[in-house]
Amino acid sequence: MRIFGIDPGSERTGYGCVETDGRRHQLVACGVISALAGDPFPQRLARIHRELVARLAACRPECVAVESLFHAVNARSALKLGHARGVAILAAVEAGCEVVEYTPAEIKRAVVGYGRAEKHQVQQMIKLLLGLDKAPSPHDAADALAVAICHLHSMPPAGLVVLPAPATRGARVVRSWRQYRPPASG
Amino acid sequence: MRIFGIDPGSERTGYGCVETDGRRHQLVACGVISALAGDPFPQRLARIHRELVARLAACRPECVAVESLFHAVNARSALKLGHARGVAILAAVEAGCEVVEYTPAEIKRAVVGYGRAEKHQVQQMIKLLLGLDKAPSPHDAADALAVAICHLHSMPPAGLVVLPAPATRGARVVRSWRQYRPPASG
Repeated sequence: MRIFGIDPGSERTGYGCVETDGRRHQLVACGVISALAGDPFPQRLARIHRELVARLAACRPECVAVESLFHAVNARSALKLGHARGVAILAAVEAGCEVVEYTPAEIKRAVVGYGRAEKHQVQQMIKLLLGLDKAPSPHDAADALAVAICHLHSMPPAGLVVLPAPATRGARVVRSWRQYRPPASG
Repeated sequence: MRIFGIDPGSERTGYGCVETDGRRHQLVACGVISALAGDPFPQRLARIHRELVARLAACRPECVAVESLFHAVNARSALKLGHARGVAILAAVEAGCEVVEYTPAEIKRAVVGYGRAEKHQVQQMIKLLLGLDKAPSPHDAADALAVAICHLHSMPPAGLVVLPAPATRGARVVRSWRQYRPPASG
């Protein structure tokens, strides 16, 4: 099963696709769609939509998970963000995908286990969960992968889940992602 | 020249197309795209986009004018409205149109001559300016026509402009729309 995560923004829209067999998650693709300097706002929206349509066609996910708004934002930023979210959600619907939304707190809780986790903690957990050599960068891509993984963790569990093994510790078996806590550092 | 006006909203999106020869404005089409009851939000956005793409293809305007936000709105409504505006602007860009924006106050000032005009005053002026038998209804369609006409009035004037003649008064000649004040009622 493939989930495509989107962290929309009018300046930078992160995206990330994760595949799972119910036991292991694997990175399919991730990246950032950046606005071109000097592009007027309508062209920025068209670019976000066009690029997402292309990425969704390449990744062929079953579902698209989108980061939703945190409430502490003002009306002006909310309006701007709304435009980017609108064209992102449209791209998902056009690709025939189900669209689900999670708040930043839900995403952090599902990925790190703590709703107020820092950005670098999210990045480190993404690295661990996807068995990557280094944390995905920039953080918009990591955030998009996080919302995809959040949706995977929110689905009914398909039996036991095996985490990718940290080199020095061997495989860790947990009954659900929610029970997992990252090992203490050092 | 044809201008296509859009008054976006997640529940109801008004649209209206106006043609002008520089002297007279004529109604090409207008209407409202309403959300289907029970449609989830992503499908509503897709419907707004799909319907606007179809209307724009039929009307073939040179330019799309969109009503922009009034500032007294809260972050939650701004976000929702942003989604609808995003997919509306996207449809305009995809149709190869220039996109311009006007605030409600600018629109009212350009159409009625007063930035705080009431909805029914706008509707009556649209009726007068387009030489219609009755005011366009519902008001979302009238608002969309108003933003299109606002853009026409904001363009460099092409000589004298003749208003459609009210039955009892004969033709009125004004040098620009901005100078025009509606006749006192009664």
